[in-house]
Amino acid sequence: MKRRQFLTAGGLGLAATTIAAPAVAQSMPDIKWRYAASWPKSLDTLYGGCEYFCKRVAEITDNHFQIQPFAAGEIVPGLQVLDAVSNGTIEMGNTALYYYWGKNPAFTFGTALPFGLNTRQHISWLLWGGGQDMVNDLLKEQNVIGIPTGSTGAQMGGWFRKEIKSMDDLKGLKFRVGGFAGTIIAKVGGVPQQIVAGDIYPALEKGTIDAAEWVGPYDDEKLGFVKVAKYYYYPGWWEGTGQGHNIMNLDKWNTLPKHYQAAVESASRDTFTWVTGKYDAVNPPALKRLLVAGAILKPFPQEVLEGCYTAANEIYADLAKTNPHFGKMYASLTAYRADSLAWMQVAELSFDSFMMRMRTRT
Amino acid sequence: MKRRQFLTAGGLGLAATTIAAPAVAQSMPDIKWRYAASWPKSLDTLYGGCEYFCKRVAEITDNHFQIQPFAAGEIVPGLQVLDAVSNGTIEMGNTALYYYWGKNPAFTFGTALPFGLNTRQHISWLLWGGGQDMVNDLLKEQNVIGIPTGSTGAQMGGWFRKEIKSMDDLKGLKFRVGGFAGTIIAKVGGVPQQIVAGDIYPALEKGTIDAAEWVGPYDDEKLGFVKVAKYYYYPGWWEGTGQGHNIMNLDKWNTLPKHYQAAVESASRDTFTWVTGKYDAVNPPALKRLLVAGAILKPFPQEVLEGCYTAANEIYADLAKTNPHFGKMYASLTAYRADSLAWMQVAELSFDSFMMRMRTRT
Repeated sequence: MKRRQFLTAGGLGLAATTIAAPAVAQSMPDIKWRYAASWPKSLDTLYGGCEYFCKRVAEITDNHFQIQPFAAGEIVPGLQVLDAVSNGTIEMGNTALYYYWGKNPAFTFGTALPFGLNTRQHISWLLWGGGQDMVNDLLKEQNVIGIPTGSTGAQMGGWFRKEIKSMDDLKGLKFRVGGFAGTIIAKVGGVPQQIVAGDIYPALEKGTIDAAEWVGPYDDEKLGFVKVAKYYYYPGWWEGTGQGHNIMNLDKWNTLPKHYQAAVESASRDTFTWVTGKYDAVNPPALKRLLVAGAILKPFPQEVLEGCYTAANEIYADLAKTNPHFGKMYASLTAYRADSLAWMQVAELSFDSFMMRMRTRT
Repeated sequence: MKRRQFLTAGGLGLAATTIAAPAVAQSMPDIKWRYAASWPKSLDTLYGGCEYFCKRVAEITDNHFQIQPFAAGEIVPGLQVLDAVSNGTIEMGNTALYYYWGKNPAFTFGTALPFGLNTRQHISWLLWGGGQDMVNDLLKEQNVIGIPTGSTGAQMGGWFRKEIKSMDDLKGLKFRVGGFAGTIIAKVGGVPQQIVAGDIYPALEKGTIDAAEWVGPYDDEKLGFVKVAKYYYYPGWWEGTGQGHNIMNLDKWNTLPKHYQAAVESASRDTFTWVTGKYDAVNPPALKRLLVAGAILKPFPQEVLEGCYTAANEIYADLAKTNPHFGKMYASLTAYRADSLAWMQVAELSFDSFMMRMRTRT
C-alpha cells in the first residue's frame, strides 16, 4: 500500500505531472518505514545508533521520510531480522550479519572475521577494499542490500570462572560465544553455547556454562558478570571489530526516490561515527568501574591465541575451497590485512604505544 | 543576494504562503554555496573528500542545495579559508584548524594536539567528550561553526637528510613542519620552517632545509621526497591524527532550512568515513612502493620522543594558565586520554599486536 501510494504521488507517471499535483509531493513524498533492530534497548549504543539514524533521516527529509525503530522482539525476534527484511515483512533492519552464518558462513565478513581486521581496517576494507560490494553480492541472494552503521571496537574475550593457562583448559569448556567464532571454539575442543542476553548471567552463576563473552566493558557491566566470573580475558580475537549493518529489502529500496536512498546512505555512515565514537567514549570509564568491582584482567596466553589462530585458518582454508563467497572475501581480506598491518605497525602502533608508556609514567 | 533569494522563496513570510507558491519551493529552496578547501587537488583524499561531500549534499537534497568546491588558491588561498568564511566572502570551507594557531593556539585541538589523541580517540572526544562544542566556542569568535570531516590517520615524522640519533641532532635542524608543532620543535632547538607544498622538494634537494614532514606515505610519495631525503621517520608525534573540518559562516548557516543544516551535518560525518577509510586503504601500498624506492624507515629514538614530549607538556602548562580556551580543552583532552589509553591497551592493542606478530610469521 505504501509502495502504491508512492508510485501514485511521486512516481514519474504522466498523470501526476499533467494534473499539476503539488510539487512537494513529487519531490518529498511522505513515506513511513518500519525498522527492526537485533538489539534490546539496554544495548543503548547499538540501539541508540538506530534511534539516531531514524532521527537523522527525518531531519534531512524535513520529516517526510519517517523510519520507526523497534527493539529486538518488539515486532521481530533479534535473530530473525534478516529473514523479516528478506521477505518484506519489514522494510529495513539493523543487525550483525554474522548472526546468519548458518545460512552462509561468509556473512561473518560483514561483522567480523575471527582474527580478521580491527575497526578502522574493517570499515576501510568495506568501503574501499571492495568488502561491502562482496557482502552485498551475498545479501542480494536474500533480496537485501546493506550499509555499515558502526562498530563496537575490539571486543573483550569474556568472563571466565577459571583461569585459562593452556589449550587444555579450553577442552570441554562450555563457552557462550556469538556468531561464527563458535566453530573455532568447537574445533579446539570447547563447547560453544548460544544463549540470549538475559539467560547468560544465571547460567554463569549456576555453572551451567563456564564462561561467556558479550561485548566490552560498557555493555558487559550492565549484565553483572563480574559478580559470578571474575577473570576478564582479552582480546576477543573473534571480534577485532563488531560492525553493525542497516539492511534494506531490495524491492522496497528500489521504490525510494534517489534522494531518500542517499539520505539513508549518508545517515548510515553518519551513524558509524556516532556508534563507534560512543563505544570509544563509554568503554574506558566502564573498565575502571569493573576493575573496582573486582574484575581480574587477563590476556589470553600466547599459546592459546596461536592455537585458535591455527584452527581458524584451517577452517577458512576449507571454506574458501567450497564456498565461493567465502573464498572471494577471504582472499580480499587477507591481502588487505597483510599490507594494512605492515603500515599500521609503523605510525599508528608507535604513536599509540609511546602514549601508553607515558600514561603510566605521569 | 543568495540569502535574499532564499528568504523570498523559502522563508516563512505570509506572502509566499497566501499566493500558494509551489510547495516545492518552500520545502526545497534552490541554494548555491561556494566552498573553499585548504587543499590542492593533488591531495586527492582531502580534496576528494570535499568533492564527495558536495556530491552527497546534492544527492540528498535532490540537487536543490548545490555546494561547489574550489581547491586551494582557486578563489581563496589555502591558509586563508577561515578568514574568508569568517567574513562571509564564501559560505563555507574545508580546512585544518591548526593552520590558525597564530590566532589562538587552541585551534590545534580541532586538528591534532601534538602527543594528543589517535584517530578514533579524537573523533570520539570531539563527538562524545565535548571537544567539538569547545572547538565551536572558539570558532564562534570568528562567526563560524565547524563539523569534523575525516582524518589522515597517524602521520609520519617526515623525511630527513641525516639520521636523528639524539636530541642534539635536533639543534639547528631546519625542519619544515605544519601547524602548532613548530613551537615544540623551536623549544628543543630546531628551526621550524613554514613552506608550501610545491616549494618543499627543491628546498630539501638544495639543503636549504634538513627535513620535511608532510602527511603519510600516499601523499608524501607524490611529492617525491624519497629521492632527496631517504630517512623516513615515525611516528609524527605532532599528529596522532589529522582531522579536517567543514566550517560555515554562522550568518549563512542560520539562513539554511533546518533540513539543509541536517544534510550538511550528516554528509560531513559521512565524509569522515570516506576520508579516513580511503587513507587507511591507500597508505599501505604507498609505503611498500616507497620502501622499494629506497626509503629507510626509522623510529624516532625514545630519548627524542621523550624530550619533545616534555617540551610539549611545558608549553601546554603555560598556555593552559593564560589561555582559557586552551586550558579548558587541554583539561578535557588529557582526562579523556588517560582513561582511553588504559582501555585501548587492553583489547585493541593486544588484538593488533598479535595480528602484527602473525603477519610476519606466515
